[in-house]
Amino acid sequence: MSTPDDTDGPKRVELLQGTLDVLILRTLTHGTEHGQGIARAIERTSGDAFLIDHGSLYPALKRLEKRKWIRAEWGVSANGRRARFYELMPAGRRQVEVQTDRWERLVEAMGRVLRSEPAEG
Amino acid sequence: MSTPDDTDGPKRVELLQGTLDVLILRTLTHGTEHGQGIARAIERTSGDAFLIDHGSLYPALKRLEKRKWIRAEWGVSANGRRARFYELMPAGRRQVEVQTDRWERLVEAMGRVLRSEPAEG
Repeated sequence: MSTPDDTDGPKRVELLQGTLDVLILRTLTHGTEHGQGIARAIERTSGDAFLIDHGSLYPALKRLEKRKWIRAEWGVSANGRRARFYELMPAGRRQVEVQTDRWERLVEAMGRVLRSEPAEG
Repeated sequence: MSTPDDTDGPKRVELLQGTLDVLILRTLTHGTEHGQGIARAIERTSGDAFLIDHGSLYPALKRLEKRKWIRAEWGVSANGRRARFYELMPAGRRQVEVQTDRWERLVEAMGRVLRSEPAEG
């Protein structure tokens, strides 16, 4: 049986749908960044566990922009190319807290079930 | 702004797509159970953080059955009703390990990004 782990190396782990937004928002708390830079930063800080493909990154950025959690402006990247630079908005900064808290509650609840022992009766 | 938390009480947390399977499999390590019983067991052990609706439960059970990770048989529930009882198969037992391990690696990688500080340079 083939799993993503067999082909992508032992460290790689699949992102669950709904988790990319908070990773992007958290990354932007470090400062304004272009799409490629955001993807690289997430990959690096995750210890290369996550591979951020453009097919999920750009729709996520569009979604966050539409909600006014981030805003985009044209700028010039370090290698002289024109690129959209994304900036965290105040509402997006609040979302980092909200979504991190939600994630932590999910982890806690999942942990309770995954460590559960048979109940009596 | 309305979130699921506003309406469902402060303890409730939304399941992410792809996490229900391992919760079902883990629950069935405690013994054979019918659908309703599985849902109640997950809700109880999660501390009522998760609300398992039939619209996600039954497709998940079908999926797990198709993969031969669980098998179903007709039986009679405690209140005398005919119900499908689900049993964990050996391949399903292995999946509990595989998927729990995958979940833990996801939690670790998410944690690294969510706690990340700005990188130098």
